[in-house]
Amino acid sequence: MSQMKAAVIAAANAPWALEDRAVPEIGPNEVLVRIHACGICGTDVWMADGTLSFHDFPLVLGHEGVGEVVAVGAGVTRRKVGDRVGIPMAQKVCGVCDFCHEEHPVSFVSGVNCANPTLTGVTVDGAFAEYIAADAAGTVLLPDGIPYEDAAPTLCAGYTVWAALRKVDPKPGARIAVVGIGGLGHLAIQYAKAAGYHVTAVTRTPDKQDLARELGADTVVADGAALRAAGGADVLMHTSSSHAAIVDAMNGLKPWGKVVLMGVATDELPLPAGPVAFQGYEVIGSAHNGMEYLVEALDLVARGAVKPMVNVFPKERVGEAFEVARSGKARFKAVVTF
Amino acid sequence: MSQMKAAVIAAANAPWALEDRAVPEIGPNEVLVRIHACGICGTDVWMADGTLSFHDFPLVLGHEGVGEVVAVGAGVTRRKVGDRVGIPMAQKVCGVCDFCHEEHPVSFVSGVNCANPTLTGVTVDGAFAEYIAADAAGTVLLPDGIPYEDAAPTLCAGYTVWAALRKVDPKPGARIAVVGIGGLGHLAIQYAKAAGYHVTAVTRTPDKQDLARELGADTVVADGAALRAAGGADVLMHTSSSHAAIVDAMNGLKPWGKVVLMGVATDELPLPAGPVAFQGYEVIGSAHNGMEYLVEALDLVARGAVKPMVNVFPKERVGEAFEVARSGKARFKAVVTF
Amino acid sequence: MSQMKAAVIAAANAPWALEDRAVPEIGPNEVLVRIHACGICGTDVWMADGTLSFHDFPLVLGHEGVGEVVAVGAGVTRRKVGDRVGIPMAQKVCGVCDFCHEEHPVSFVSGVNCANPTLTGVTVDGAFAEYIAADAAGTVLLPDGIPYEDAAPTLCAGYTVWAALRKVDPKPGARIAVVGIGGLGHLAIQYAKAAGYHVTAVTRTPDKQDLARELGADTVVADGAALRAAGGADVLMHTSSSHAAIVDAMNGLKPWGKVVLMGVATDELPLPAGPVAFQGYEVIGSAHNGMEYLVEALDLVARGAVKPMVNVFPKERVGEAFEVARSGKARFKAVVTF
Amino acid sequence: MSQMKAAVIAAANAPWALEDRAVPEIGPNEVLVRIHACGICGTDVWMADGTLSFHDFPLVLGHEGVGEVVAVGAGVTRRKVGDRVGIPMAQKVCGVCDFCHEEHPVSFVSGVNCANPTLTGVTVDGAFAEYIAADAAGTVLLPDGIPYEDAAPTLCAGYTVWAALRKVDPKPGARIAVVGIGGLGHLAIQYAKAAGYHVTAVTRTPDKQDLARELGADTVVADGAALRAAGGADVLMHTSSSHAAIVDAMNGLKPWGKVVLMGVATDELPLPAGPVAFQGYEVIGSAHNGMEYLVEALDLVARGAVKPMVNVFPKERVGEAFEVARSGKARFKAVVTF
Repeated sequence: MSQMKAAVIAAANAPWALEDRAVPEIGPNEVLVRIHACGICGTDVWMADGTLSFHDFPLVLGHEGVGEVVAVGAGVTRRKVGDRVGIPMAQKVCGVCDFCHEEHPVSFVSGVNCANPTLTGVTVDGAFAEYIAADAAGTVLLPDGIPYEDAAPTLCAGYTVWAALRKVDPKPGARIAVVGIGGLGHLAIQYAKAAGYHVTAVTRTPDKQDLARELGADTVVADGAALRAAGGADVLMHTSSSHAAIVDAMNGLKPWGKVVLMGVATDELPLPAGPVAFQGYEVIGSAHNGMEYLVEALDLVARGAVKPMVNVFPKERVGEAFEVARSGKARFKAVVTF
Repeated sequence: MSQMKAAVIAAANAPWALEDRAVPEIGPNEVLVRIHACGICGTDVWMADGTLSFHDFPLVLGHEGVGEVVAVGAGVTRRKVGDRVGIPMAQKVCGVCDFCHEEHPVSFVSGVNCANPTLTGVTVDGAFAEYIAADAAGTVLLPDGIPYEDAAPTLCAGYTVWAALRKVDPKPGARIAVVGIGGLGHLAIQYAKAAGYHVTAVTRTPDKQDLARELGADTVVADGAALRAAGGADVLMHTSSSHAAIVDAMNGLKPWGKVVLMGVATDELPLPAGPVAFQGYEVIGSAHNGMEYLVEALDLVARGAVKPMVNVFPKERVGEAFEVARSGKARFKAVVTF
Repeated sequence: MSQMKAAVIAAANAPWALEDRAVPEIGPNEVLVRIHACGICGTDVWMADGTLSFHDFPLVLGHEGVGEVVAVGAGVTRRKVGDRVGIPMAQKVCGVCDFCHEEHPVSFVSGVNCANPTLTGVTVDGAFAEYIAADAAGTVLLPDGIPYEDAAPTLCAGYTVWAALRKVDPKPGARIAVVGIGGLGHLAIQYAKAAGYHVTAVTRTPDKQDLARELGADTVVADGAALRAAGGADVLMHTSSSHAAIVDAMNGLKPWGKVVLMGVATDELPLPAGPVAFQGYEVIGSAHNGMEYLVEALDLVARGAVKPMVNVFPKERVGEAFEVARSGKARFKAVVTF
Repeated sequence: MSQMKAAVIAAANAPWALEDRAVPEIGPNEVLVRIHACGICGTDVWMADGTLSFHDFPLVLGHEGVGEVVAVGAGVTRRKVGDRVGIPMAQKVCGVCDFCHEEHPVSFVSGVNCANPTLTGVTVDGAFAEYIAADAAGTVLLPDGIPYEDAAPTLCAGYTVWAALRKVDPKPGARIAVVGIGGLGHLAIQYAKAAGYHVTAVTRTPDKQDLARELGADTVVADGAALRAAGGADVLMHTSSSHAAIVDAMNGLKPWGKVVLMGVATDELPLPAGPVAFQGYEVIGSAHNGMEYLVEALDLVARGAVKPMVNVFPKERVGEAFEVARSGKARFKAVVTF
C-alpha cells in the first residue's frame, strides 16, 4: 500500500494525468480513506486554470471524494476501519483565529470562514487519488445504500444547494425559482421538491426546459417577466453562470423575497438597489454552512428523493473527465472512480 | 377652516411655494390633522425633480408630517380630537391585492408592498400643508413630550434607520458600521448606540468624523481597510449616497456579516458576488417594515436616547428649506413648521 | 330581511334553540354576512356551560361562521356584496391598548392579545345565526371552490393547527408527532403531511390508530416510549384533552425539540422542568397568530390537501349538534348550516 | 508532578476532603491543566448528596475549573503550554450517536445532548483538584485580564445565564424580569443590563431587593402582580429555586412573552396551559447551548460589565466551601482555589 495513483496537476492549465505517489501517512486524529469516487466541481476548473489560487502546484484536486476508511490514527474515536465516508472541502479549522474563537470555537462546520482552514483539494491534497489522509472529524459518514457515484457529487454540489435552501428557510409550500439548470440547478429542483416547495425552473434553453419538467419542476419559464406572470417566486436560487439571468429573474420576485447566491463567482453582480430596499428583498450568500446540511443532503439522496445526474469516468480517463467538465458538456456532474 | 396654506408643487422642477387650498374633507375612517411640522426627505427631492414619479403634478409632498387631530370621520375609534399624531408614508393598503390577501391581510405596516397603496405625499397629497386628511389607522400616536420638530424627521428618516436595524436583528453587543454620515447616518449612529451596539462610523470627511464621535460612535474610520484593521463589523448600514463606499466597506465585513440597504436608489450596486457567497454575507433590503418600529423609533427620541439634528424653517420659507435639502447643505434634516 | 333565525343561548347550560331575532344593522366599516355554515368549537362548549365567561347571556355563539356578503357599510373598500367570507374569532382590536400601540398598532391578527378585543361569538354575537354584522377587515375571503361545510371548521380548528405548526417552524422533513386524534388532531396530521413533514400519531385508541393511518400518518404509536423507539419527534403537537398524554409523549421528544400548546385549557400542565432545561426543549403557546395563517389554512383545504371530517346538521337540529360536540361523539367537527 | 491534591467525594453525602491522587496522564488531543480556581455549582450539591447520579463514587466534582495549560498531548494544535483556559461541563461528545450525527456532527457545543458525552466533574473527574486532563477542544481560552476567581463561576453560572438570554433573543431594549436573586440571578441582572435591556428584579426578600438595585436593576418588585403594575415583562428568567415564584411572575408576562428555564430541577413546574396558549407564551429550556456563548460571557466579565460575587476558599477549606454552598449561605458563588 505504499504507492498509489493520483491525478496530480503539475501547473496551471497543465493536463490532468495519473501519476504514482506515495500513499499518505496519517497522524493523530486522521483517517486514511481508500477513495472510490470523486466528483469534479466548477471550483476545480477555476483552480486548474489558475483563476483561483490557494496553493502552489503541483496539487491533487478533489473535494467531492468518497470511499472507505482503511486505517485510523491515534486519538480517533469517531471513525473506524470499514466506515464509508466522504471528505468535503471544509476539512478542518485552525481553532485559534478570531472566527474560530469568537463564533464557532470548536466547530468545523464553517471551515471556509476560518482564517487558516484546511480545505480538501484546495489548501491540501484532495481526493482525485486512490488514497487520502483526512481529519477524522472532517469526514462525514455515508448513509447505508447510497452508491459512491451518487454520494460524490453530493459532497459539494448537493451540499451547496441544500445548505442554501436551508439557510434561506422558506416557509412551507413556498414558491422557489431555480435560475439556471446545470450541475447545481438540476439538484436544486429536486431538493426543493423533496422539501415540499413549489418549484419553477427559469431557463431559456428548450431541452433544459424539458429536463426541468422531468426533474419535477411544477412550472418552467424563460425569464423574470414570465416568472412574474406565472405567479412569482418567494425565493430565487442563483445556480446560473450568468448574473444577468438572476437580475432579470428578480422581476418575478415577490415582495420580501430572497435571492440566494452560492458557489464562487469572480465578477460583480449588478444589484438593483432600489427594488432591493423598497421591496425588502434579501440577497443571501451561502457556502456549505454546516455539516448537518451535508448529512441531510446525503440522506435525501440515499432515500431516493434526489438523484444526481452523473457521467462516470474511470480514473484512467481523468483527463477526459476534466475536459468534459471544463467545457460544460457534462450532464451534469463528472465523477471519476478510483 | 375652509382655506389653508399648502406647499403645492406645480410641476417637475417647479419652485415650492405656498398656495391657498381648500382644507380637505374627511370621509369615514379618516382624521383631519392640523400639521405642525413636516420634514423633507431625499425622496421628496427625487419626486420634485421627476426622478421618481408616482402621481401627476400638482401635488403636495410630505410624508414626515406631525400634528394634532382636529376632527374625526365616521367609524373612527382609534383616534380622537386632540391626539398628537404623525402620518408616515405608508398610510393605507388596498386590502385586496395578492400581497394584502396572502401575506398581510389586514395590516397597514408594509404599505409600500401593496399593489395599490395610499402613500402620503406620494400617491395622495402630503403634509406640507396646514391640514391633511388621513386614514386614522395609518396614523401613529406621538409619545408624550416629544417636540414636533424632532418627531417629524423620525416619521421617515428615523423609522427607516431603526426598522433597518431591527430587520437585521444583530446579536447583543454586535459591531455596527454606519457607512455615510448624513440625514440617515447621523441617526443610525445614535439608534445603534441606544440599542447597545458597538458603533463604527465610516466616512472620509474630517468634520463628519468629528461629528460622528460627538454623536457617540465608538470608532471612526475612513474606509473598509481601516474598518477591518479596527476589528471589522458584523453589520454595515448603507446610509451613504455612494454605492462605492459600501462596496469598499465590505472589506471590513466579518464572515456571515450583513449589509442593510435602505431608502431609494436608482442605480446599480456592483455586488462582489464571490465574497458574498463564500463569506455567507447577506444583503438585506429594508423599508419601513411595520409600524411597531416607528413606535419604537419615536419612543427612543422621546426618551432622549436619540436626537435628530434639524434645520427648522417656517412655512413661508418652504422653498428655501427645499433648496437646502436638495443641495445637501442641511445638517441634517430640514423641517418645515406650519 | 328584518327577522332571522339565531341559536340564542339564554343562560349557562341552557339548551340551544332557534329563536327569531332582528337582523343586525351594520355601521361604518362593517359587512352584513348571510351565514351558510358555522362549526362548533370546544370553546363553545366551555362558554355554553359557563366554564369560560367573557359576556353575559343571552349570547349567540359561533366563531367558525362562513357565508356571503349581502351588504356593506360606509367606508368599506375591501369587501363587496357577493364575496364569500369567513368571520374568525379575532374580529377587531381596540387599537389603543398597550398591546395594540406597542406591538401591532394597526393589525387585527392577534386580536386575542388586545386588552379590549371584539371576539366573534365571545364578546359579541357570533355566527350561529342567519346573519351577522362583522368588521370588514376582520373577515377573510374564502378561496374559490371550497365548500362552506369544509371552510367552517377551518375558521378556528384548522387555523389553530396550522398557525401552531407555522409558529413552531419545523425544519424541512422534520418529525412531527400529533398527540391526540380528535377535532384538532385529525387536521394536524393532514396539515403536517401537506407541509412535507414526517408524521407520527400518538394515541392509545385502536380505531383512532387506524384512522390516523388513513389520514396519512407515517407511523402510529401508543405512547412516548414507543415514540422514542420509533425514532422520536422534533415537535409534539398537543391536540389531546389530556395533559398526561403530552407529558408522557415528551419521553419521545428529541433534544432541542418543541411542544406546541394550542386551544384553551383550564388546568395545569405538570411540566418536567429538568428535562426541559437540560434538553433545551421549548413549550410554545399558540393561538391564531395572524390572519395570513388562516389564508394558508383555507388554501390547503381548497386545494384538497386537507379534508376536515365533519358532521353536518341543519339549523333546526342545532341543539342536537351541540350535544354531539359536547359529548365528544362528533367525528370530528360538528357543523351547522343556516 | 506525579502526585496532587484533589477533593475526592468518597460516597453520597460523604464530607469533601483533600486527598492525594496521581496527576492524570494525558492522551492524544488532551491538555493537562494546572487548576487555579473552581466554582461550586448547585449541580455539585445534588451530585454530592446523590439526588443526581451520573457516575459512581469516588468522584472528583467540579465543572467550573480554570487554570493554565502545562502540557499538551499528541495532535493538539489549538492549545499550547501557558494558555489560560477553562474546562466547562460539556467537554466532549461521542461523535457517533444520532444527535451528534444528525444535528451537530462535529460540534462539542451541546455536549449535554449527546447520548454518550464526556461531562467534566460528572461522567469523568472534574476540577476540584490541582490538575485535570481535558480534551483540548473542550477547553475555552480565557480573555486577558480576567482573574481566575471571576472566571470560575462564569464557566457554568455565567454561561448558563448568558446562553439563556441569547437563546431567548429579546428585542433591543426589551423588558427582562429576573425571578430569584441568587447565584444565577445576581449574574442575570448584570448580563441583561450589559446587553442593554430594561431589568426588573422579582424577589420578596428585602435585602435582595436592595442588592438587585445595586447590581443595576431598573425596577424591583415582589411578585407578578407588582410586575404587571410596573409595566410587565417580555421575558422572565427563572433563576429561582421555587417554581411557584415563576408561575406567579407569569401574571406580569406580556402577550407573546417568554419564560426561560435553566439549570436542573427535579420537580414539576405547574404550567398554566390556558394562558400559555392564549397569550402565545413560550417556555424555553436552556442549557449551555454553544461555546460561543461562554466566550461572550467571559468577555463581558473581562471587560468589567459583569462582576460575579464570590466567596473564595483555599483548597484546604474545600469542605467548608461546600457547606456554605449547600446551605445557600454563599453570596453567591463559592470558589475554591488550588
